[in-house]
Amino acid sequence: MNDDFHCNRLCIIGVGLIGGSLARALRAAGKVDEVVGCSRNEIHLTRAQSLGVIDRFMLDPARAVEGADIVVLATPVSRTAEIYQAIAPHLLDDAVVSDVGSTKGSVIAGIRQALDHVPVRFVPAHPIAGTEKSGVEASFSELFIERRVILTPLDDTDPLAIERVANMWKAAGAVITRMTAEHHDEVLAATSHLPHLLAYGLVDTLATMEERREIFSYAAGGFRDFTRIASSSPDMWADIVFANRDALLPVMGRFLEDMDLLRKAVEQGDRQRVIDIFSRAKSERDRFAALVGRFAKPGDLE
Amino acid sequence: MNDDFHCNRLCIIGVGLIGGSLARALRAAGKVDEVVGCSRNEIHLTRAQSLGVIDRFMLDPARAVEGADIVVLATPVSRTAEIYQAIAPHLLDDAVVSDVGSTKGSVIAGIRQALDHVPVRFVPAHPIAGTEKSGVEASFSELFIERRVILTPLDDTDPLAIERVANMWKAAGAVITRMTAEHHDEVLAATSHLPHLLAYGLVDTLATMEERREIFSYAAGGFRDFTRIASSSPDMWADIVFANRDALLPVMGRFLEDMDLLRKAVEQGDRQRVIDIFSRAKSERDRFAALVGRFAKPGDLE
Repeated sequence: MNDDFHCNRLCIIGVGLIGGSLARALRAAGKVDEVVGCSRNEIHLTRAQSLGVIDRFMLDPARAVEGADIVVLATPVSRTAEIYQAIAPHLLDDAVVSDVGSTKGSVIAGIRQALDHVPVRFVPAHPIAGTEKSGVEASFSELFIERRVILTPLDDTDPLAIERVANMWKAAGAVITRMTAEHHDEVLAATSHLPHLLAYGLVDTLATMEERREIFSYAAGGFRDFTRIASSSPDMWADIVFANRDALLPVMGRFLEDMDLLRKAVEQGDRQRVIDIFSRAKSERDRFAALVGRFAKPGDLE
Repeated sequence: MNDDFHCNRLCIIGVGLIGGSLARALRAAGKVDEVVGCSRNEIHLTRAQSLGVIDRFMLDPARAVEGADIVVLATPVSRTAEIYQAIAPHLLDDAVVSDVGSTKGSVIAGIRQALDHVPVRFVPAHPIAGTEKSGVEASFSELFIERRVILTPLDDTDPLAIERVANMWKAAGAVITRMTAEHHDEVLAATSHLPHLLAYGLVDTLATMEERREIFSYAAGGFRDFTRIASSSPDMWADIVFANRDALLPVMGRFLEDMDLLRKAVEQGDRQRVIDIFSRAKSERDRFAALVGRFAKPGDLE
């Protein structure tokens, strides 16, 4: 099935780390004849072209999608709906559209609002891959190898469109999973969005302490790993946080309550409670380390 | 100066990851004639001997230190003072004693209480190195290469003893820094102890959520890096947390307050505030990444 995949003209709207890496992967695999890039920034597009990531580019999304059999929206999640609205009248009848957004409920809701319906050939998708870097310069063709891509189709999404998007990602080396958008957003809030908030928050708290320069100079590798995700793009992550606010706030609230209980246990000298929490966490962490290892390399983000 | 260092008989009390790696490093550098190990667990000691980490061992600390010119206490911080009390009458007059504890104020206070004074030839030290693994099997001679070792001598600590401990760690490849115990504890509370609490706490919060198995299976590399320190020893970290409680609680309280403000900003849709926090954090993180890189490898813990 995988070997059958071929794309005549792929249009990538938003040629950054994810969009650029997808284009590179499909080109490297010989699965696409032509890649058309689109973005608001002509300098980025020129760069993408000179890097060989795209064949040509258009600044206007409506023109960029002309004749494309697959269109991938790889822009910040807050812009997906308006772009879909702009391209919808210009798509080929049988064009398949997908996205790469880190939140799915908000993307689907935005498109439904903009178009008054969710097109049956739109397949919402989220590749769980990335690094803390951004931009087409950071893109590489191996980014998705053995990474998960979560598809969150709706009940009436065209099965052939789902299959085509799944095969595209398989051609890029990824492993496909399907779930509802709502469930995706809950899982990602817990495992990705909340950790990003904590990493940003911790670095910010320390940065506002007086001896910050010195503090950071004594930080060990554990701290560096723990806070690496705080080097991710602030704009993109603010977008994600607000787009997934409904799923994020409950898990964040729960975590802060749990941490306050842990703080009180430390304050009150309740050693057994602290050991119980640490032990339960270590046992879970050890258990899933192997599991996570199958789908994530150190340095991967999402 | 470094080349002058030599130890006739090194006694390591607590032959785990740190103690074992120090012994290996000094042996590999040809800087020690004999290494005597001591621990409560004979099986561990036999293992350490068969791995070639120590030459021989004694179960009784008072006997283990006999004739040693350097004694390194590499036990959990909660046990350092009682061991010092047990060995004090049996030390050579000119023996230098040091430790490797992650907290320094509590170790010094414990020794002062146990002995009614802090010996002038005791040099409190903390190598900022480690992994989430523990035990002598995880030890290796390169652990301290280009890692920082913080010495926190008292005003009346013997300068020659300080120099000897500094030279020992230099011989193991480390870079030496001096500061007060109080300052050490504040810095480590922020950059090491709090991140450990957060990692343990996050995994525990997620583990108690219903769909935990599935949540972990979709976690990406960012989550794995962020939570790796939650695989550290619960007992050891409970020890550290309580030993450094006075420095830890204020920074933890401040972080939780900051996180609650961030939560409210998300709740209230205050995008600018969220971007400000993320941007400040990213800028700090990027700035210190290179700095930290000089003294920490990915995978290092403390």
